[in-house]
Amino acid sequence: MTTPIEPDQTPKQRLDRQIRFLLEIDKLKSISRQNFLADSSRREDSAEHSWHLAVYVLILAEYFPGVDIARAIKMTLLHDVVEIDAGDTFAYDEVAYLDKDEREQAAARRIFDLLPPDQAAEMRGLWEEFEAIETPAALCAAVVDRIQPLALNHASQGRMWQEHGVTADQVRKRNKVTFERGPAQLAAYVDEVIAEATRLGNFSRSGAPATEREKQQ
Amino acid sequence: MTTPIEPDQTPKQRLDRQIRFLLEIDKLKSISRQNFLADSSRREDSAEHSWHLAVYVLILAEYFPGVDIARAIKMTLLHDVVEIDAGDTFAYDEVAYLDKDEREQAAARRIFDLLPPDQAAEMRGLWEEFEAIETPAALCAAVVDRIQPLALNHASQGRMWQEHGVTADQVRKRNKVTFERGPAQLAAYVDEVIAEATRLGNFSRSGAPATEREKQQ
Repeated sequence: MTTPIEPDQTPKQRLDRQIRFLLEIDKLKSISRQNFLADSSRREDSAEHSWHLAVYVLILAEYFPGVDIARAIKMTLLHDVVEIDAGDTFAYDEVAYLDKDEREQAAARRIFDLLPPDQAAEMRGLWEEFEAIETPAALCAAVVDRIQPLALNHASQGRMWQEHGVTADQVRKRNKVTFERGPAQLAAYVDEVIAEATRLGNFSRSGAPATEREKQQ
Repeated sequence: MTTPIEPDQTPKQRLDRQIRFLLEIDKLKSISRQNFLADSSRREDSAEHSWHLAVYVLILAEYFPGVDIARAIKMTLLHDVVEIDAGDTFAYDEVAYLDKDEREQAAARRIFDLLPPDQAAEMRGLWEEFEAIETPAALCAAVVDRIQPLALNHASQGRMWQEHGVTADQVRKRNKVTFERGPAQLAAYVDEVIAEATRLGNFSRSGAPATEREKQQ
């Protein structure tokens, strides 16, 4: 990491900007996701999700041989900070996805630019690399970013899938990157979870949110 | 990272143990800490705290030249998982500290041993290294583990300090590792925050919890 001190930036000003960024991202703890915790007690927030992903990468590293695991971990740590401004875009909300990119780009500018310029560029670069899913480290982060919510939704008896009318096909599509480019063992795990959740009736069959289906009954 | 497959362990059994561990640590999201979020809306949980620490290490890496930053990040990610069994031991609770080590050692055995044996040893080693604060990476993790709650308690107007009767002297003592062995710039930052919080009257002056002091008024 290069750490050039800008001509107009004292070491104290540099540290102040770093601390300001670290305090700003505290807000990620107040961004609620759709999925529940494994025990179904409440929804997960994006800071918790980011921590969990980072540990996923650490523990599942061996399925990504040759991948810069430290880089993948950094991506998981930062991948959601844009949600502080842009909100969490639900993975199965096709309308919200239309302007997701625009909202998140603006958020990335504001939030990462709190940092000293060299670090702002570095951290934003990590986020953009994550978003593009082109490098091996980004693929690793993308795969676990789909497996972690799958595992939690499965553990909480598909409560979120039912609430939002999410079908097995949608979940399979969401995990496409794992089936097409991920490690075979993790693809097999995703397959197994989807099969088991289907057997248990945890997915929505109609694709309609639970509340609407209840009305029909 | 070595990934020996034990003679009695199939690749599938290995992955199953890894997933079991990753699901078990979901419980860290339900372990509440004493300090509040920066906006004072609620207390922080230990998973959020672990994520925040990891980002602290990433952003403040330059103050720890030559340190294995990836290792320090891994430590911050895992440093609190023992709390799933042992609970969060409040930093200023001297009685709870008496058996903290014993409780946490038992927790480490149970939780890390969910993993395949080679990984259990590796992750437990990271936790033990963090606890001992002897290596440069552990020192880095220990310093941010004290600065992050300081910054949050300061941002939330010392609400936790007031509630628990925590004085400036106690906070100074808690940050001893930074003053004695940490980077000078971060020690200066800690000094500055303590001075400002003192000026604002955010610390407890009597050392008595807020409820008891209120009774006296």
